Amino acid sequence: MNRQWVLAQRPVGLPRHSDFAKREVPVPTIKDGEVLVKILYAMMDPAIRNFLNAAGSYMTPLPLGSPIVGVVLGRVEQTASPALQVGMIVSGFGSWSDYVAAPAGNFSRVPDDLGSRLEDYTHPLGTIGATAHHGLLSVGNLAAAESVLVSGCAGAVGSLVGQIAKLKGAARVVGIAGGPEKCRRACESYGYDECIDYKETRDLSAAIRKALPQGANVYFENVGGAMLQAALDNITKNARIVVCGLIAAYNAVEPLAGPTNLWNLVVNTAQIRAFRVADILPQHAYLRTIHSEIAAWIKSGRLVYKVDVRDGFDAIPDSFGCLFSGAHDGRLVVKIND
Amino acid sequence: MNRQWVLAQRPVGLPRHSDFAKREVPVPTIKDGEVLVKILYAMMDPAIRNFLNAAGSYMTPLPLGSPIVGVVLGRVEQTASPALQVGMIVSGFGSWSDYVAAPAGNFSRVPDDLGSRLEDYTHPLGTIGATAHHGLLSVGNLAAAESVLVSGCAGAVGSLVGQIAKLKGAARVVGIAGGPEKCRRACESYGYDECIDYKETRDLSAAIRKALPQGANVYFENVGGAMLQAALDNITKNARIVVCGLIAAYNAVEPLAGPTNLWNLVVNTAQIRAFRVADILPQHAYLRTIHSEIAAWIKSGRLVYKVDVRDGFDAIPDSFGCLFSGAHDGRLVVKIND
Repeated sequence: MNRQWVLAQRPVGLPRHSDFAKREVPVPTIKDGEVLVKILYAMMDPAIRNFLNAAGSYMTPLPLGSPIVGVVLGRVEQTASPALQVGMIVSGFGSWSDYVAAPAGNFSRVPDDLGSRLEDYTHPLGTIGATAHHGLLSVGNLAAAESVLVSGCAGAVGSLVGQIAKLKGAARVVGIAGGPEKCRRACESYGYDECIDYKETRDLSAAIRKALPQGANVYFENVGGAMLQAALDNITKNARIVVCGLIAAYNAVEPLAGPTNLWNLVVNTAQIRAFRVADILPQHAYLRTIHSEIAAWIKSGRLVYKVDVRDGFDAIPDSFGCLFSGAHDGRLVVKIND
Repeated sequence: MNRQWVLAQRPVGLPRHSDFAKREVPVPTIKDGEVLVKILYAMMDPAIRNFLNAAGSYMTPLPLGSPIVGVVLGRVEQTASPALQVGMIVSGFGSWSDYVAAPAGNFSRVPDDLGSRLEDYTHPLGTIGATAHHGLLSVGNLAAAESVLVSGCAGAVGSLVGQIAKLKGAARVVGIAGGPEKCRRACESYGYDECIDYKETRDLSAAIRKALPQGANVYFENVGGAMLQAALDNITKNARIVVCGLIAAYNAVEPLAGPTNLWNLVVNTAQIRAFRVADILPQHAYLRTIHSEIAAWIKSGRLVYKVDVRDGFDAIPDSFGCLFSGAHDGRLVVKIND
């Protein structure tokens, strides 16, 4: 049988367990060109929250009763495509299920010559690593000796952004996170020179100014809202604001207030550049370049990361909720099958 | 004697005549490397409004009692620099004065081989032409067959942006302006396929969607506020939002509300790119390329424009006020001296 978590009702604000329902359906059969993938890990990505909203929200809404979609890591069990063979480990868009049948092109084989553990493909060698590397270096166009500011800096993406910035010669890397524990990890493990605890900071703009008196050449935005407003007060001439996600907007019941200081973009001839990692996933050669560089850093011990693995299919809804409460440490994934 | 308009008090909201005071001072003497320029035309640019605000606003504030600064067109009367000779027509940053003494490098000679009238150097062959051309083509990176949306489309910059977009093969060019007269001019004279009268439009976002069902590849932003919010609802994948100015912010007493739909940037992997024409003014070769192309369009009758010349030094404060009330037609300049 094929277990699935489906959308029982649309969450209002933070997602709750009761928004999801478990069902069992037959294992799907594949058609020509498709593969059957047994899902080993389901990735808990904040962006999934967007798909759960009703029409009129930003993303194409997931119909009620549909399996929840997201990035998965799995193994090919059956194939009707020359592109993928049985036994290959693949990643791609799947769902919160034991099995998914889809065109082979929806999945890409994870490189097995990088000498890494399976879990690594859920984090630095998966979409998170690609997001951090591509966002900071290609979208943000970070140059050596520049300064970097990162919101959500102790999260999966942020934890890599800080380290990659340092590995590429950034002069100063400042993070923003919520709570002393996250700030400690950011500085001790993830390369940050300083971390601002926004929960303990009355004037975030002033706190950033103190931590980065010259301003940020690159601001890596994961959060939005008040973070973006405070960051806009502290950008350098020709700064790049890289928008990877706006977590503050995902669970918002009301539209998130926009920054009132966009004029700072003009004063600094700065840019806001949004990107989606999904757009680069089909660029296999580019992706391989990114992951090879990251694999080399891992092998030489210069890039640390943590995968927070929750165990079992039934753990998915609560794990997803943890993503927004901050009750996790590192990249949050659920191991569904061995 | 040298007449000057100085800042008498900081405007609150729209600038009034009483915010400025007239005084007479001696004609300045020049030092080594400087030139004395007799000002012929003072340009009425919305950006000047920013300099009048107090510290804490976005720009470096002009001290009370100082001459109002801005772009001028003038003639070299005395020179102590080999770079500029007496009699040359030059443009650069000056002030609302009869004479200004400044380093020769502050001024650039207007090209006298483009076969144009003196007034043309205040508009298509001056900073306005450079703003429209550079902003749309280099910053906005407009490609043929793309769609363009322009706020403030009947203003000086907007009137050129629409025409340049069409000359470069844009598929559809839609403008936003206030009032039927401006909208008529935009469509009849300035190349716009359609113009939305925002004063007569309850739902600006829906009106843009109707005029541009496929969305805007480039949005040329002169205004900000509600315009930006509505435009963000109507951008294409990989859209470029070019921010030239945010007129709505200039006279705002309270901070302008920010767009609540920045998530659309992520959905569309779009960019906001701000620029200042002042940054390209020192790039003489690039500027000359821009102005040569514009001069060719003028000569072949393919670019129309209007200079609204107000006469006399005393007309400056009221002319500046007209800039924000919309009681002008085309590029607003004041002719100070012959």
